[in-house]
Amino acid sequence: MDTKRLRLDRSRSPVLYRQLSEQLASAIGRGELQAGERLPSERDLAEVLGISRTTAVNAYRELESQGLIRGYVGRGTFVCAASMVANGESHDGNGVSGAPFAWRGKLAHGAQRTLDPTLRTIVRAASDPSVISFAPGVSALECFPTDAFREISDRILSRGARVALGLAPSEGQPVLRRALAHYTGVRPEHILIMSGSQQGVDLVARCLIDPGDAIILDRPGYLGAIQTFRAAGASLVGWDAERGDLEELEDLILRYRPKLLYTTTTFQNPTGHTWPLSLREDVLGLVSRYRLPIIEDDPYRALWFRTAPPPSLYELDGGRSVIHIETFSKTLAGGLRLAWLTANEAIIDQLALVKLRDDISTASLTQLVVAELLSSGTFTAHLASLRAEHARRHQAMLSALDRHVPPGLLRYRPVAGGLYLWCQLQSGQRASELMLAAARAGVAFVAGEHFYPDPAGMHDLRLCFTGVVPARIEEGVRRLGPLIERRSGSLEQNDSGQPIV
Amino acid sequence: MDTKRLRLDRSRSPVLYRQLSEQLASAIGRGELQAGERLPSERDLAEVLGISRTTAVNAYRELESQGLIRGYVGRGTFVCAASMVANGESHDGNGVSGAPFAWRGKLAHGAQRTLDPTLRTIVRAASDPSVISFAPGVSALECFPTDAFREISDRILSRGARVALGLAPSEGQPVLRRALAHYTGVRPEHILIMSGSQQGVDLVARCLIDPGDAIILDRPGYLGAIQTFRAAGASLVGWDAERGDLEELEDLILRYRPKLLYTTTTFQNPTGHTWPLSLREDVLGLVSRYRLPIIEDDPYRALWFRTAPPPSLYELDGGRSVIHIETFSKTLAGGLRLAWLTANEAIIDQLALVKLRDDISTASLTQLVVAELLSSGTFTAHLASLRAEHARRHQAMLSALDRHVPPGLLRYRPVAGGLYLWCQLQSGQRASELMLAAARAGVAFVAGEHFYPDPAGMHDLRLCFTGVVPARIEEGVRRLGPLIERRSGSLEQNDSGQPIV
Repeated sequence: MDTKRLRLDRSRSPVLYRQLSEQLASAIGRGELQAGERLPSERDLAEVLGISRTTAVNAYRELESQGLIRGYVGRGTFVCAASMVANGESHDGNGVSGAPFAWRGKLAHGAQRTLDPTLRTIVRAASDPSVISFAPGVSALECFPTDAFREISDRILSRGARVALGLAPSEGQPVLRRALAHYTGVRPEHILIMSGSQQGVDLVARCLIDPGDAIILDRPGYLGAIQTFRAAGASLVGWDAERGDLEELEDLILRYRPKLLYTTTTFQNPTGHTWPLSLREDVLGLVSRYRLPIIEDDPYRALWFRTAPPPSLYELDGGRSVIHIETFSKTLAGGLRLAWLTANEAIIDQLALVKLRDDISTASLTQLVVAELLSSGTFTAHLASLRAEHARRHQAMLSALDRHVPPGLLRYRPVAGGLYLWCQLQSGQRASELMLAAARAGVAFVAGEHFYPDPAGMHDLRLCFTGVVPARIEEGVRRLGPLIERRSGSLEQNDSGQPIV
Repeated sequence: MDTKRLRLDRSRSPVLYRQLSEQLASAIGRGELQAGERLPSERDLAEVLGISRTTAVNAYRELESQGLIRGYVGRGTFVCAASMVANGESHDGNGVSGAPFAWRGKLAHGAQRTLDPTLRTIVRAASDPSVISFAPGVSALECFPTDAFREISDRILSRGARVALGLAPSEGQPVLRRALAHYTGVRPEHILIMSGSQQGVDLVARCLIDPGDAIILDRPGYLGAIQTFRAAGASLVGWDAERGDLEELEDLILRYRPKLLYTTTTFQNPTGHTWPLSLREDVLGLVSRYRLPIIEDDPYRALWFRTAPPPSLYELDGGRSVIHIETFSKTLAGGLRLAWLTANEAIIDQLALVKLRDDISTASLTQLVVAELLSSGTFTAHLASLRAEHARRHQAMLSALDRHVPPGLLRYRPVAGGLYLWCQLQSGQRASELMLAAARAGVAFVAGEHFYPDPAGMHDLRLCFTGVVPARIEEGVRRLGPLIERRSGSLEQNDSGQPIV
């Protein structure tokens, strides 16, 4: 910020702090101060302008109450709302001044905990055809059974709008619940149809989490869940299932008295890790002693390459204390927005009531079409070809990494299913820096830090190998390889030669 | 409850209160005490069993902490979780006892505010073909442009799954945002696509409401909004826009300092009332003085019979402090789950971030198909025929009521659009009693009390006249008419001759 432009005059009204806050507000309004820009500390500002520190503090408080800036302990004060005020349309009728409407001042606390747009960036990157994107977790859409989907969809629509497009019950279309019950071996009443598995995580948070509750979750783990539970006001306690230390888990339970354990047990996002059967049994035994419910988010379990994974926690537990979330987003297509949740009837009933005020019910036609894909056997046949294609792309990614990344610079491990390779940069290069360089080269991935509930994972990155055809995988990795730098072998240097803290 | 079965023994452990709570819990588990059953007061229980009141209190507390019963101030203590414990599946492995998992004890406060299943009952009634239902707010699905929808849907799918079924951006498919921008005369950036307008109400609540916030809303008004805002922990202050008393509104603003005003200005649900232009201008002038944002839920504005309604608050305000919600649920079909919200770009951005952790985005294919219905002109042509059909059904309902309801027993007023007739029983009969009698006769409607944020509307009922073909309207009202009773002209008697309080 150019503080020289600020002109304060003790002899004039309004009082100094208000002159200061008004000049800063107007600089934000004109766009001279941009959203995300860091302001000088109150101490520095006071010194430069020759005012008392209290005046600077009061001015910042005023701006903060207007929602224009926000202070973060230990990080400083930032402009947070340039677009908020700049886009308000002027309105001179009804005795209103031309000042824009300060929406941000109205935001709820929960919404203020939802300012991280990472997930959105990933979703957006998925729809830009010029980018070779290893970022979003999407499966091979080329395998989608389009002809069967068209044919079934058209047939259902031909029966008239009342059947195809009437409002479905909140729990889901009975025909889909029955088809899924048959497919998964549970009772239809234990199934809740949802508009994607993210909705499942959200419904669970709304149903079970009060602000201040602790939850234990995968570290690293699904970033949508991290953001959802954080926005619900939960305190997040990470546990590394791959290390699988049961004593640590019990210590965490005793220390934090968590409300629930959230985990992905099979082909985990982002690590690709699958819990062995023994760990599943041991963890169930442990958490049941503490009456701790488990949310098992299981979007990848059908996507093995050669061997089916062990039974889910839900199956092993007999559906007692586990809520199991599964989705068609990874097996069919994300744009369908169709998933389901399996649990005890009592909690299904409660979740359905929350879903009712969420989106009432999931779109009807999609449910009817997918029910028929399931019952006709098309879905099972599709899964077989999808698995083969995913294995092929996994191999293509491994070969490309082998060819284009200089040895020793990137650590990763082949997986047995799912969508992701979880990689560690070995030279001290930060994944967020590599991400910027890669974006310039037209390649996208997700930096690892977003998968941690605490500051970590600076050198990790997630590559989705399934969403891109093998030739594009090759091309993407060919562009990425040279950007992975060979540093001086230390973690102490970054680009500018400054120490990294 | 049969207290004679309870056997307490001072000479044995565990202590008395725990013996009592365990015996009650096991009675609940066996189904001898059913969900909803009222327990004796602690005082009465203590007296009957010859124990101290403290022992009874402690036993009830213990059961409450297990989620099995719940006390309501002034109403008593009720069994709340019979199904919760009865449906848990027994599980003897892993050292776990056979006791079912007490999910209800894990519920968040917000979820406990969401126990009213009225909306669900309405949704379910919509899908039972044996019932002539005036309950759900649905338009004439027979008018739905099925052929155009099939043809467009098939054409889009033929371009491949990547286009049709890839994940859409959270804000919506660009092509639909552009089509809607053209249709409504705003900029695409001001539009957020949603999975139904209930999601809009929910996003607004999540974005703007903290527990304890006051909001002003229509009295009577949309029950989904009442439930959503109540679940968000808001205190609800009703204002009757039909009376339109601006001084009262200003008093409410001054007294409750509300976070927002939620209203439906056109063909309101349930009253059918439309704000005249002057009221729109006056209210905008008033609320802008208090920087009070307005949520204008406007699902019916396209559904006029002869004359288009006045401009929306959003249009009159220039989009400054109004969030406007509109939907395809009433103009096309509810099962599409497609709606949109128009507002200042800044708040759109925030709402989209909340939507991201809600359901990530709305289903892709539906958005693409409806965009083409809009841009091809099919939607506009469809609206014209829908309006004519709705006017015809409105007339059919009025004639049927005229023919089958004895004069003077039901007050209602013709409307100029929308889906509802709002009726008042004139003889003291309660709408909830009529509803039960009607259900036995295979006719459904919604009792008026559900539309009030406070106990009221006992003699009101809402009839949706658009969802049923005229012949069925006639048949439904023919069944309903004789059930509307001519009482002794007073409000002081009910069926059993007991005074109504």
